[in-house]
Amino acid sequence: MGVRRFFALGLAAGLLFVLPSNAGRHDTQAPGWFRYALGDFMVTALQDGSIDLPASAYQGLRADKIEALTKRAFALSANGVPTSVNAYLIDTGAHHILVDAGNADCYGWKLGGLTANLKAAGYEPKDIDIVVLTHLHGDHVCGLAAGGNRLFPKATVWAAAEEAAYWLDEKNKATPPKARAALALYGKDFRTFKPSDAIAPGMTIVPAHGHTPGHTAFLFESKGAALLVFGDIVHNHFVQFAHPEVSVMSDANRAEAIATRQTIFAKAAADNTAVAGGHLPFPGIGRLIKDGDGYVFAPVEFAPKP
Amino acid sequence: MGVRRFFALGLAAGLLFVLPSNAGRHDTQAPGWFRYALGDFMVTALQDGSIDLPASAYQGLRADKIEALTKRAFALSANGVPTSVNAYLIDTGAHHILVDAGNADCYGWKLGGLTANLKAAGYEPKDIDIVVLTHLHGDHVCGLAAGGNRLFPKATVWAAAEEAAYWLDEKNKATPPKARAALALYGKDFRTFKPSDAIAPGMTIVPAHGHTPGHTAFLFESKGAALLVFGDIVHNHFVQFAHPEVSVMSDANRAEAIATRQTIFAKAAADNTAVAGGHLPFPGIGRLIKDGDGYVFAPVEFAPKP
Repeated sequence: MGVRRFFALGLAAGLLFVLPSNAGRHDTQAPGWFRYALGDFMVTALQDGSIDLPASAYQGLRADKIEALTKRAFALSANGVPTSVNAYLIDTGAHHILVDAGNADCYGWKLGGLTANLKAAGYEPKDIDIVVLTHLHGDHVCGLAAGGNRLFPKATVWAAAEEAAYWLDEKNKATPPKARAALALYGKDFRTFKPSDAIAPGMTIVPAHGHTPGHTAFLFESKGAALLVFGDIVHNHFVQFAHPEVSVMSDANRAEAIATRQTIFAKAAADNTAVAGGHLPFPGIGRLIKDGDGYVFAPVEFAPKP
Repeated sequence: MGVRRFFALGLAAGLLFVLPSNAGRHDTQAPGWFRYALGDFMVTALQDGSIDLPASAYQGLRADKIEALTKRAFALSANGVPTSVNAYLIDTGAHHILVDAGNADCYGWKLGGLTANLKAAGYEPKDIDIVVLTHLHGDHVCGLAAGGNRLFPKATVWAAAEEAAYWLDEKNKATPPKARAALALYGKDFRTFKPSDAIAPGMTIVPAHGHTPGHTAFLFESKGAALLVFGDIVHNHFVQFAHPEVSVMSDANRAEAIATRQTIFAKAAADNTAVAGGHLPFPGIGRLIKDGDGYVFAPVEFAPKP
């Protein structure tokens, strides 16, 4: 018998049995952390949560082509494009640096898994001494607060000077009030950087403006290994790796966002530098391979040792 | 400053600091289990381990094209093609069915993570009452034994009649002795099936011969949701989704293996049926989307709830 009949068989088998409902089944998920070795550094990817976003509006490609690509995302979820919210902890030996702090409960989304996943991975919030923010959208900032207090009591929090100037301006209504409140908890421990600043050994500030005025990536390097934690350079991996010329509505400056994405993709692919994305499928770490006019993303694969 | 300078900056920064070695870093990985809800059933993907295989010999595509595709795998590991060894536990409410049992220590590979991951996921080996084997290669069979005893004391173990006839023939030197010994531990609890047999409600036998003489997939269905656990239909996801016409050396009957792969891919893509593969990147579950003459694999994405 060939495989062609398998669905017909399936239907037939379904009619033969009545199954009990499976009330006693385990329905917890594995914890949302993943370790990635980077020379002497150890990177821990941390998931704050995942949301099914409505298909966003993309520009820069024929509508039918975009539809065909986003259909791939909808093969996974009828509710929308599955979108992870990731943060990255880099233990350099000298510092515990957290890149982005998760969404917690901004934008009406109930995420906030960051703390539990941080603890499951063997850390406590007090272990973090540096937080660097790729940008000040709520889903990267609101997780700095927990119950009205600093989640990271010992951390200095950093963002680009351009980013702070834009988003912390009281006239900018787009900033979620909770994001501004979370940053305010850090008082003088919230600081801004210029591109030439060196905040911590092994970490380089890489301006990557466009998505927001001061959007920044961070390059971590140890013993010849490199990881570029690049925040919101990509929003839809089904579309934008193949078509980096496609922009998303939330990009503040689309032309600049596209140019930045093109530059970063080209360099990371040419040098086989690993990248980590704030909204790539968890753990969100992988490499880019040039493929025609676009790129293919090769995500890291799970293995028992980092 | 633009992003173009980022690697130059990185090198400069690297020279400015001397970092302590990171001896106190956490170097454990997250546990290798992943839950996937399927109607009233609950599926738990379990990783036995992962190996970097040498680039296998593929047939059916120009050598330069194959080289370009396998290069994507080598972007992730210089040691070879990262290859996961997966098993799947399906809790149907009536049964705990394990599809494949992992490699343990066959072929000289030290894997054997299945038991620890099963326990981390909330199960004990004695909970398993049915084991179905896609085929009798050692990396699917050897994990039935632990320390010379049955790992699954209460399970009946099943394989296709053609598969048992071929691999258990003493004249067939290709069977690892440990695989034969593992099966022997189950005595009369090792049984064979014909395609028309119904072993458990909600599970359908789907002959998928070619990789081995009795290679079999298993279709699980609950409340309109379906998952085809298809064993070794794919060995290299970088090559064979785009080019299902490419065969791998370990396929016993290449023409049949290719025809089976083409049929299963086409059907799964047309019906948007989820698939789970014994060697796909863990957790190895996803959907196929038709793309030109081949397919794109859209893996499930990690989320805090199954």
